[in-house]
Amino acid sequence: MATSADKPAAQPDKVAPETARSASLLKADIALRLSLFSATLVALVVTVTSKQTKLFNFPFSPFPLKLDAKFNYSPALIYFVVANSVACLYSILTVGLSSFSVSRSSQSTKLLLLLSSMDVVVAGIMASATGAVSSVAYIGLKGNSHTGWTKVCNDFDKFCQHVGSAVSISLVASIILVFLVILSSYSLYLRSH
Amino acid sequence: MATSADKPAAQPDKVAPETARSASLLKADIALRLSLFSATLVALVVTVTSKQTKLFNFPFSPFPLKLDAKFNYSPALIYFVVANSVACLYSILTVGLSSFSVSRSSQSTKLLLLLSSMDVVVAGIMASATGAVSSVAYIGLKGNSHTGWTKVCNDFDKFCQHVGSAVSISLVASIILVFLVILSSYSLYLRSH
Repeated sequence: MATSADKPAAQPDKVAPETARSASLLKADIALRLSLFSATLVALVVTVTSKQTKLFNFPFSPFPLKLDAKFNYSPALIYFVVANSVACLYSILTVGLSSFSVSRSSQSTKLLLLLSSMDVVVAGIMASATGAVSSVAYIGLKGNSHTGWTKVCNDFDKFCQHVGSAVSISLVASIILVFLVILSSYSLYLRSH
Repeated sequence: MATSADKPAAQPDKVAPETARSASLLKADIALRLSLFSATLVALVVTVTSKQTKLFNFPFSPFPLKLDAKFNYSPALIYFVVANSVACLYSILTVGLSSFSVSRSSQSTKLLLLLSSMDVVVAGIMASATGAVSSVAYIGLKGNSHTGWTKVCNDFDKFCQHVGSAVSISLVASIILVFLVILSSYSLYLRSH
């Protein structure tokens, strides 16, 4: 009688911390995915609205010439906009999917593996886009005397501020994606016990 | 008697496929890490040996001028060399560590989680370095009429061939790292059953 009375008491004690841990992991996962959504959306808007038009006086022209700087003048910035759009859509779609992975069933563990695999691919895309724009922005800011590429940020300050902010936000988004992969691995690790 | 005779027969049957699966996962992991080592080492050597010197005839100079192209003239290429060195060292160090994670003990599962987390960070570094050099190489190859950055690859063909090859190899290395993360997640997934 004593044994059968102990057993039902021990079961909820063991299950409760596991459920609480799963719930807090899910909360962290959803919070990270929502932050990723905001970060990529902000980076996207900041890049797309970076257009700047300025009037320049040239010695050979009798009247000032209008020149503009737009994100679609640089292939790196076009790739950056595409990568951010993909990550933005991906983040909002996976918030829903992630909620299903909280139960400790075999199906949900498969879903966790799938999410973790897709997260690492999106992290790679975001990291490469951030790297691509950073290097072009650095040339725009400092120039390169060896190749004769002159800086453009002294003329197009607003455009460069927009690109610089977008790169910083995109770096944060890449770090969030790395944390999402680590979180999924940790969830799988907890289930292996 | 029949029950006790069945049990020991069933145990090796269940363990054998699991051990075989663990062994093949370990083989794949070590093969990927060795490929990563070769890829990053080749990318490193190809980038470091890319120096090209050429003589140019300028109308303002009475004699030809010597100009050179070196990887350390571009901050993106310096970052690329550092990232490849880190990934190269990391890959060879983790071949040894990975061998320990084959046993299904609690310690080895912790090691697998650690390896997976470090893999995703190195994957991010490699992806960003590949993106950074790709975008600069693209400007070197095609130029950018909007910013007035002229192409340099028609003058420094050997240098550009080296950088182009290094970027392709580095892209392969980044994909290998993504596969390593997925493989670790899959190993953790298998242990959760």
